Amino acid sequence: MSVRVGILGATGAVGQRFIQLLDDHETFEIAALTASESSAGETYRDAAKWRVNTPIPDAVAEMTVGATTPEAVPDDVDLLFSSLPSSVAAAVEPDFLEAGYVVSSNSSNDRMAPDVPLTIPEINADHLELIEVQRENRGWDGALIKNPNCSTITMVPTLAALDQFGLERVSVSTLQAVSGAGYSGVTSMEIIDNAIPHIGGEEEKMESESRKLLGDFDGAEVTLHGADVTASCNRIPTLDGHLENVFADLTEDPDAEDIAAAMRDYPGVDLPSAPEQLIHVFEDPMRPQPRLDRERGDGMAICAGGIQATDEGVKYNCLAHNTIRGAAGASVLNGELLVEDGWI
Amino acid sequence: MSVRVGILGATGAVGQRFIQLLDDHETFEIAALTASESSAGETYRDAAKWRVNTPIPDAVAEMTVGATTPEAVPDDVDLLFSSLPSSVAAAVEPDFLEAGYVVSSNSSNDRMAPDVPLTIPEINADHLELIEVQRENRGWDGALIKNPNCSTITMVPTLAALDQFGLERVSVSTLQAVSGAGYSGVTSMEIIDNAIPHIGGEEEKMESESRKLLGDFDGAEVTLHGADVTASCNRIPTLDGHLENVFADLTEDPDAEDIAAAMRDYPGVDLPSAPEQLIHVFEDPMRPQPRLDRERGDGMAICAGGIQATDEGVKYNCLAHNTIRGAAGASVLNGELLVEDGWI
Amino acid sequence: MSVRVGILGATGAVGQRFIQLLDDHETFEIAALTASESSAGETYRDAAKWRVNTPIPDAVAEMTVGATTPEAVPDDVDLLFSSLPSSVAAAVEPDFLEAGYVVSSNSSNDRMAPDVPLTIPEINADHLELIEVQRENRGWDGALIKNPNCSTITMVPTLAALDQFGLERVSVSTLQAVSGAGYSGVTSMEIIDNAIPHIGGEEEKMESESRKLLGDFDGAEVTLHGADVTASCNRIPTLDGHLENVFADLTEDPDAEDIAAAMRDYPGVDLPSAPEQLIHVFEDPMRPQPRLDRERGDGMAICAGGIQATDEGVKYNCLAHNTIRGAAGASVLNGELLVEDGWI
Amino acid sequence: MSVRVGILGATGAVGQRFIQLLDDHETFEIAALTASESSAGETYRDAAKWRVNTPIPDAVAEMTVGATTPEAVPDDVDLLFSSLPSSVAAAVEPDFLEAGYVVSSNSSNDRMAPDVPLTIPEINADHLELIEVQRENRGWDGALIKNPNCSTITMVPTLAALDQFGLERVSVSTLQAVSGAGYSGVTSMEIIDNAIPHIGGEEEKMESESRKLLGDFDGAEVTLHGADVTASCNRIPTLDGHLENVFADLTEDPDAEDIAAAMRDYPGVDLPSAPEQLIHVFEDPMRPQPRLDRERGDGMAICAGGIQATDEGVKYNCLAHNTIRGAAGASVLNGELLVEDGWI
Repeated sequence: MSVRVGILGATGAVGQRFIQLLDDHETFEIAALTASESSAGETYRDAAKWRVNTPIPDAVAEMTVGATTPEAVPDDVDLLFSSLPSSVAAAVEPDFLEAGYVVSSNSSNDRMAPDVPLTIPEINADHLELIEVQRENRGWDGALIKNPNCSTITMVPTLAALDQFGLERVSVSTLQAVSGAGYSGVTSMEIIDNAIPHIGGEEEKMESESRKLLGDFDGAEVTLHGADVTASCNRIPTLDGHLENVFADLTEDPDAEDIAAAMRDYPGVDLPSAPEQLIHVFEDPMRPQPRLDRERGDGMAICAGGIQATDEGVKYNCLAHNTIRGAAGASVLNGELLVEDGWI
Repeated sequence: MSVRVGILGATGAVGQRFIQLLDDHETFEIAALTASESSAGETYRDAAKWRVNTPIPDAVAEMTVGATTPEAVPDDVDLLFSSLPSSVAAAVEPDFLEAGYVVSSNSSNDRMAPDVPLTIPEINADHLELIEVQRENRGWDGALIKNPNCSTITMVPTLAALDQFGLERVSVSTLQAVSGAGYSGVTSMEIIDNAIPHIGGEEEKMESESRKLLGDFDGAEVTLHGADVTASCNRIPTLDGHLENVFADLTEDPDAEDIAAAMRDYPGVDLPSAPEQLIHVFEDPMRPQPRLDRERGDGMAICAGGIQATDEGVKYNCLAHNTIRGAAGASVLNGELLVEDGWI
Repeated sequence: MSVRVGILGATGAVGQRFIQLLDDHETFEIAALTASESSAGETYRDAAKWRVNTPIPDAVAEMTVGATTPEAVPDDVDLLFSSLPSSVAAAVEPDFLEAGYVVSSNSSNDRMAPDVPLTIPEINADHLELIEVQRENRGWDGALIKNPNCSTITMVPTLAALDQFGLERVSVSTLQAVSGAGYSGVTSMEIIDNAIPHIGGEEEKMESESRKLLGDFDGAEVTLHGADVTASCNRIPTLDGHLENVFADLTEDPDAEDIAAAMRDYPGVDLPSAPEQLIHVFEDPMRPQPRLDRERGDGMAICAGGIQATDEGVKYNCLAHNTIRGAAGASVLNGELLVEDGWI
Repeated sequence: MSVRVGILGATGAVGQRFIQLLDDHETFEIAALTASESSAGETYRDAAKWRVNTPIPDAVAEMTVGATTPEAVPDDVDLLFSSLPSSVAAAVEPDFLEAGYVVSSNSSNDRMAPDVPLTIPEINADHLELIEVQRENRGWDGALIKNPNCSTITMVPTLAALDQFGLERVSVSTLQAVSGAGYSGVTSMEIIDNAIPHIGGEEEKMESESRKLLGDFDGAEVTLHGADVTASCNRIPTLDGHLENVFADLTEDPDAEDIAAAMRDYPGVDLPSAPEQLIHVFEDPMRPQPRLDRERGDGMAICAGGIQATDEGVKYNCLAHNTIRGAAGASVLNGELLVEDGWI
């Protein structure tokens, strides 16, 4: 079975990752690429300033880029991946949904909307049923599904594993890679021999999205998880891979080995892009490290380490590849789930 | 008035900072330099591989380096600064104390010993009186005084400012510069495009030293402060300046401006190396940043920013220069306090 | 004596360096600041995103920024420093010259114009007399004087010292800092763990400007120096300081010590911003290094090292601070020369 | 056909690359691993501090490491790869050769010995016949073959392509990655925000080895190529990939396209680890770049770009992966050539 897919915003940093991940994908076949008006009509090779460290797939290089409008996308495309800037996405995603497209979107708009599923297949695949609510509310033939922010997705699988011990409160500090801000988001003068202790909007995303992902869905709405989440987000001079220090309060009193086992045993899913082991737990406290561990599971695994029980619960570190598991790979995995569950 | 001082371990990274800071000091005059046996007899210029970005002071360059033994230090030296590796310091500091020297030491051994003052002049100058207890216990004519670890000293002044609001609990995550590990402590292969989520022993130092610094001294012993402190320590690719994210629980409910005012108003001390303003509070949430702010107050100020009230208290960031305020400068300031209080 | 100066393009990276260098200058007093239309009317504090690691001088912070037009500059300003982008400079510098201003410009336009002096005071102060030719040609009351490109100025003093040995040919390879491209010129994704083997226009600047600087001026025109100069320019992940490898063919056959002596003895000038020693020669082949040596002479010295005689002449390395000696400091030094020689 | 191989010095940085490259190799099967005396008897997992970004192959992880002596290597091992420090290699390689082993060595000792083949299979495979001379001279049953230094091998294929135009003289400037110095060779304090304009011994290696590689072999001895080669070697803050600026004088007068064609058409070899295209020529002058291009041809290709004809010949840039094509991969390729040519 083959599903024809399009990529909205195909020339940007995340767009290029989509193309890299979809090359030779067992189910998805790239059938449409869109970008801004000014690039429409060019070949992808000309429109994109390709910066990924594998060459552009030949077939994609010669495709013609269209504008980001429903008219520019062939009718036989079944699924759209979106990596548009959130302000652009907020303006154009509704057009595609009205036109009946299913959109798996990495853009941050509407993630917290009550009728938009925000999903990580391994964590809350059941939230996908919100599509029914969404269609009823909005009158769309299509469907909009979101994946969370890169810093959120790094932490949430580990929190899901901890939830059996009574997750009450989370303080988290992030060390985020520059690629999370897009290709030109962080200048070299800003970050060489430096760190920046704030990323606009990032803390709020972690604090709200994680509670929705861990929340209960009763068929009509998602109740946010009750844990209090507080985040401090930092940019550091790494290229890819977000590292996070988590301090979690638990009502129960597990020891470090109980927690490690809960993480290691947290079940994965059987989808083409999913890693065999969702959470890889290191015993060496010096790990995980961004450069050494971000490629684990082809960039789709979550790494954890430094687990220590504390008076109130636990502290540990986690890491994921921010432009694969944290962006393009997350949308692709959601797309695979949509196919698996029969929405496409 | 001039005080003749010696530097134990003068050729290392912190030793070089001592020499830089003591050049043209208004009170201290460098009269002795020691290093390992193998360098004894050489000029300082030959013995040290000078890597500071200001030239070696001429007078110091031609001084002869002695071995690190009391015999090698002239009798008219009144004060010793020590930046020996802690294992070496543990072995030789007692010899200098028995020989009657006053030692202001940056080495980590004995910091938690009940009869050794661990001081930051602006925070707990009164702990210096522990010297009386120490002399009685140990039978030394000299005196041993310690400054805390670089990651501890970055945070403690801000915690001291918060204590009026009922400091109950602290979770802290650090982004530490490579110079904190000494000149050869972190290889380039380890840290370029990377971060390391653990620094051996560092978390325990932050958790214990901060409680001693904030503790009460009743003339006989120091009672540790009651707050629970949990730390996660990370190494990142910056040269100098430790940045820290603090999450603090408070019994009271101050707003962000109350907290900023408490920090800004926290009193300094009138010593030659002390900054005019101890804690500099930024309103821009992107600050403090290591490269832009570490030199504030000639490297002796504490910077804070990103202050936000939370449900349980407050989150904020702080920063200090780890080899000045966090090491050599801390020992020099303690030396100035010893002079001011008449111990020398 | 005090000279009132203005800075055209005061909010950019080089503009900020001008303000840092002119703070407490013994002759120059900042009397006007200009920027783009959109910033006109704001205080400098608001208009500039200050990123230098010393605070904005208080007096400057509260000055009002004007538009970059002659009308916006007070009449009693005697000298303008310009760090405008070259396309902007090409459009507006003539207006200021017609209005009678003397402009010491760091912008790259017109550097090779036959009637525009391109000067380094220590190298070719006599070229300043081209102003007479310029005034005759252009009918300006003012005067336009240029300093060379940052990569050129790093090398030319060492070539001037070599010229006594018959300089025939130069191949030079540069390792240039990111600040040379302006604050946003190089993104972090481009340069972390990377190097870029080309800088647009830079090679041509080095190849032509160096021959003009070393050329003879006969009172009417400058004859370019006869040496053949070939350059390859690279960007590397350093913040400040351009390092260059020079291979020079000489007609004579000096040994390394002759060459070192010629560099060391090359005369400086007696101007406020000039370093006491123009060229500092290192014996240690590992030096000069950007981070350790760029501040030499307050960023105005040239450093050289690794001098080795070759079959055809010599190879050596040189270094200078690209935004001080290579940009703002170069313009200030030219301004000081204009005052000294009575042009102001 | 399977050849049983051993790795001398298997735990170091290059040793780890050997293991990565030999995993699933079509001809070679790892049968012995040696390290220093202190590691002998440990499993490889325990003896090596594995830092490559792919996991240790399971079979290798459980192998027992032996001492680096002929006795510790099983008799049925046919070929040894060596990445020993050169001083160690100089001491122990003769023992293995006397014991009859064929050694493909990356260590720098003996590279210029008249009876030791220094080979790059695509450049001078015919030099392998020097083994006959070597056996006669030394009385060894085994054979010693060397690959050149990483900085040499990056440049030599491009020079070989140029030789048809009359290669007379080469000046080359290198921008070398930190991995070239081994895992602990360059500290982070030395290289962050910095560059080092000298690498001990490196310039001499480039100047001599390149002439041997390009030299003629008449069946008895290698005559060094007549070109004059001068090198300046710099260390910069990149992890892998040496970038080099070459200035070459030619007797003929080819244009840039002639030169590009000569490089592109330079023939490869049909060996398992050889890249399909030996020299990849970029038209974009901003390429090659270390991070984007070092993986080309699985790290075995040479990249070139920025080709411009000059008055005397040509200038261009080249790049190769220094620990693959420049070290472990070079030895493996030589091993494959030894098999192909029947020496094993």
